[in-house]
Amino acid sequence: MGDLEIRHATADDLPAIVAMLADDPLGAQRESPDDLTPYLAALERLTADPNQHLVVAVREDRVIGTLQLTVVPGLSHKGATRALVEAVRIHADERGSGLGTVLIQWAIDTSRQLGCAMVQLTSDKSRTDAHRFYARLGFNASHEGFKLKL
Amino acid sequence: MGDLEIRHATADDLPAIVAMLADDPLGAQRESPDDLTPYLAALERLTADPNQHLVVAVREDRVIGTLQLTVVPGLSHKGATRALVEAVRIHADERGSGLGTVLIQWAIDTSRQLGCAMVQLTSDKSRTDAHRFYARLGFNASHEGFKLKL
Repeated sequence: MGDLEIRHATADDLPAIVAMLADDPLGAQRESPDDLTPYLAALERLTADPNQHLVVAVREDRVIGTLQLTVVPGLSHKGATRALVEAVRIHADERGSGLGTVLIQWAIDTSRQLGCAMVQLTSDKSRTDAHRFYARLGFNASHEGFKLKL
Repeated sequence: MGDLEIRHATADDLPAIVAMLADDPLGAQRESPDDLTPYLAALERLTADPNQHLVVAVREDRVIGTLQLTVVPGLSHKGATRALVEAVRIHADERGSGLGTVLIQWAIDTSRQLGCAMVQLTSDKSRTDAHRFYARLGFNASHEGFKLKL
């Protein structure tokens, strides 16, 4: 892991990020790696928003992981700011290497530096390996996660 | 429900909002309705952020409900923007009146108008009544919700 870098994503990283989003049992049905247009528009919006941190993990010029951290201010818990983690992906060649732990630990450390009182995320109920992973990192599966597609 | 208004919250609404946050089995232990200072700071941050919609439901000049809607752009699902709902509270006198449905339906309609492809929220596993409520409104309890306190 010596030369691993975690940095904000740029447009040059998009093909690798979208390939990782699509290389997934759930993502395969809902991504379009052959047409990056909608992803470019979303990246511009993310880059313009100071509360958004879309990052990639890079080793030897290869993008091998990604996640999105969103800083969410709020009133509850005495005006606590929370961090939301979405779209965590590790390249297939790197799974089991400990990279996921490094990436989530980066998200936790960054959330703390940004003054967040809590990190939260949801994980599809089918991803039972991921649930054990998050529990090992100290996350508490205290909530039901509801989604409504529009 | 004739004269119900749902509008962005202002500093004048804070005492009523914080009282609702505190009047809750979980909120009672974690809020400070006698000291609004941290809430005022958080409200300023929310008001300055165009992706934040902290709203109150008002009837006859009384604040009787609140929720926070956060617009979260992202890459996954072909660059889909999602809406996150947090801190839903209905005044004790108004529970069972249908106000919760009106407020969540407002969140769904507003999310759609803002171009979101999905609305998501988490609910503490102890809030089983809330889970039935969200299921009735079309939400799918498809995810585990993980939290890590910092």
